[in-house]
Amino acid sequence: MPVARVVVDVMLKPEILDPQGQAVQRALPRLGYQGIADVRQGKRFELEVEGPVDEAALARIHELAETFLANTVIEDFVVKVEESVAAGESK
Amino acid sequence: MPVARVVVDVMLKPEILDPQGQAVQRALPRLGYQGIADVRQGKRFELEVEGPVDEAALARIHELAETFLANTVIEDFVVKVEESVAAGESK
Repeated sequence: MPVARVVVDVMLKPEILDPQGQAVQRALPRLGYQGIADVRQGKRFELEVEGPVDEAALARIHELAETFLANTVIEDFVVKVEESVAAGESK
Repeated sequence: MPVARVVVDVMLKPEILDPQGQAVQRALPRLGYQGIADVRQGKRFELEVEGPVDEAALARIHELAETFLANTVIEDFVVKVEESVAAGESK
């Protein structure tokens, strides 16, 4: 049974204030890192999906992300298929 | 001045227990989602970098990620250049 890794990236919408990202960004010059204009912090979910990731499976994962992984009032999300690994093959 | 987006993905090492990911995975059948063998949850940082992202800039960001964004005792991280946008161009 092939297993595929599907990634769901969840980030705050651009217009939403990102205090965590700003805290990181404000600390950078003090740590000697210049030239980084902005930092945004979000969540990354890696889902190991059994079986082929066809249109139907992707639609289900999209629905799962929309209802469960992201708060779509303040967050955007992106679903990406990263790799397919036949079970038993080394990663 | 071109601005590039560099992404740093920070995930728990495979051998480290991921209670957040497990909580999501255990809830999925109850919500009607079958066929998802594993869920891992981590952090995604989007850095807007001023100027070209050459080898030196990437090395600096790698160092920044290693010392500041990830706890390398329990976490792995990946640095990826996602896109270069010349300032003023619409994204």
